[in-house]
Amino acid sequence: MKLYDFTLSGNCHKIRMMLAMLGIDYETQSIDLLDKEQLSPEFLAVNPFHKVPVIDDDGFVLRDSAAILIYLVRKYGKPEWHPDDPAAIAEIQQWLSFSVNEVFNGFAIARALIIFKREGDHEAAVELSRQGLDIMERHLKDHDWLALGRVTAADIACYPYTALIEEGHVSLEPYPAVREWIGRVEALPGYVAMPGLPYTA
Amino acid sequence: MKLYDFTLSGNCHKIRMMLAMLGIDYETQSIDLLDKEQLSPEFLAVNPFHKVPVIDDDGFVLRDSAAILIYLVRKYGKPEWHPDDPAAIAEIQQWLSFSVNEVFNGFAIARALIIFKREGDHEAAVELSRQGLDIMERHLKDHDWLALGRVTAADIACYPYTALIEEGHVSLEPYPAVREWIGRVEALPGYVAMPGLPYTA
Repeated sequence: MKLYDFTLSGNCHKIRMMLAMLGIDYETQSIDLLDKEQLSPEFLAVNPFHKVPVIDDDGFVLRDSAAILIYLVRKYGKPEWHPDDPAAIAEIQQWLSFSVNEVFNGFAIARALIIFKREGDHEAAVELSRQGLDIMERHLKDHDWLALGRVTAADIACYPYTALIEEGHVSLEPYPAVREWIGRVEALPGYVAMPGLPYTA
Repeated sequence: MKLYDFTLSGNCHKIRMMLAMLGIDYETQSIDLLDKEQLSPEFLAVNPFHKVPVIDDDGFVLRDSAAILIYLVRKYGKPEWHPDDPAAIAEIQQWLSFSVNEVFNGFAIARALIIFKREGDHEAAVELSRQGLDIMERHLKDHDWLALGRVTAADIACYPYTALIEEGHVSLEPYPAVREWIGRVEALPGYVAMPGLPYTA
């Protein structure tokens, strides 16, 4: 198993977490997004979407962090984190879409604009982040986990950029239920932290 | 089965297509996004994300178009459009994420800025649309369908905003393989068109 990886990427972090939780040995190939290595002809041949993470599992190449999470849990021993039942799988999918939409476009972009000093509309990303956090907070007030009343792929998909959001200058202080959920994810067996924190000066 | 619906929404159109393809009878409740009906207390109680589509299947309430598609095909007779096999389901998920990301943030936003006269960065949405269309074109040159070499939930998820993209002032002329794929989707049994076209003056 090979992971095309960028250390500071929350999308890569969720795959590193899942591989560790499943006890899968893997090698990494670093794709430095700050050096634009994702635009090299070699990497574009692997993923024309020029994004990480990508996995290569013995020749099966897969992009998109949500797709990779689903593949790993189904193939390597935690199918209950993404079950077959129509209502259960759909409940998880709502949060996988949330992880692509509000979490990425809000939480991750708010952070990227700060820590990578990118140009963009930070205020809009913060506003979308607050909307997303409001929804998470309301849900997590009455639920320990995002879906099915137990840990699933949905929690892993939404965790990294939520845990990193203060780097995007969005305070988690008004969101106690979200903070408690972050703590529950970090207490899961096999959890690995984002390396190198704090890496913002 | 009840669908909270907005006629001009591509995300709602994909659900109307799927319900028709599965032969499911349903009633609709119109949520007029132009009148901000999605922000009414009644609808926020249904979906705090203030978005359509939402379905209510005999009390089971589900938001998010990708989640709804998965639920419908699994529960109502086309499980082969979203199979259990880890590699197959992950291949479809890549395109479901694409439908939330490039297709929605690019194709749908480019169109919304024009037809709903919204404020926003049309140029950025067009650029993201072109990147998405380039990737689809490269893939569809050698494949009839987005995933698994056959029609799946991925095609229904990506179809509406692709077929509507010229309303966002993005020409499909440079994308012959995409246009042929649009034709294949529109030839599927049970296909229903977006009503009221052309509705832009």
